[in-house]
Amino acid sequence: MTDDERLPQPPTADIDLVTVLHALGDPVRMRLLLSYADGAEHSCGPRDLGLDHLHKSTVSHHMRVLREAGVTSTRVAGRNRFVSLRRTDLDARFPGLLDALLASAPRPAAVAAAGA
Amino acid sequence: MTDDERLPQPPTADIDLVTVLHALGDPVRMRLLLSYADGAEHSCGPRDLGLDHLHKSTVSHHMRVLREAGVTSTRVAGRNRFVSLRRTDLDARFPGLLDALLASAPRPAAVAAAGA
Repeated sequence: MTDDERLPQPPTADIDLVTVLHALGDPVRMRLLLSYADGAEHSCGPRDLGLDHLHKSTVSHHMRVLREAGVTSTRVAGRNRFVSLRRTDLDARFPGLLDALLASAPRPAAVAAAGA
Repeated sequence: MTDDERLPQPPTADIDLVTVLHALGDPVRMRLLLSYADGAEHSCGPRDLGLDHLHKSTVSHHMRVLREAGVTSTRVAGRNRFVSLRRTDLDARFPGLLDALLASAPRPAAVAAAGA
């Protein structure tokens, strides 16, 4: 896989704590974080993400905020895009933060309702 | 001390993770968190907080966001107000989160510059 197959993202050393907190301080983006926490790659469709009550452009905006903050990575394969959590990078940059967030995060249903 | 001597704040059980992250996803408010991390009560003047490059009303806004999110508590004593971190409440609600944040937080100088 070449670098060209990923959308732009900050290098690990440039991931900024305040920017990450801003990215996650939104109910829809927290919902996305919980979806990605399984470590797998996810396709980008709102339906796949349990966000089909939101417009596609809205979901795209939220996914871009996460990627530009360094929370997620997006792999491009032809016309498909696959998103995954940058867990290793985040754990290296902010030890313990992701674990604490995921342990305390609200249930997906509650978050989805908040973002509706 | 009676409840009347504190400005309104959410009870511990109502402190919401996404709201806390939103509150801390701002360079000035992160700077305030670092100031309060010593556990002491702090007066509210911008100069006391190392934020004298900001207007008093701007600092008041940021302090209100932190208090309403449940991050800080404000005690009123006559014409003076004293702010402190709700560390016990936050630790109970989100175990490990505050420690991870404080361990990874940028240096105050860098944060202050970002908020200038």
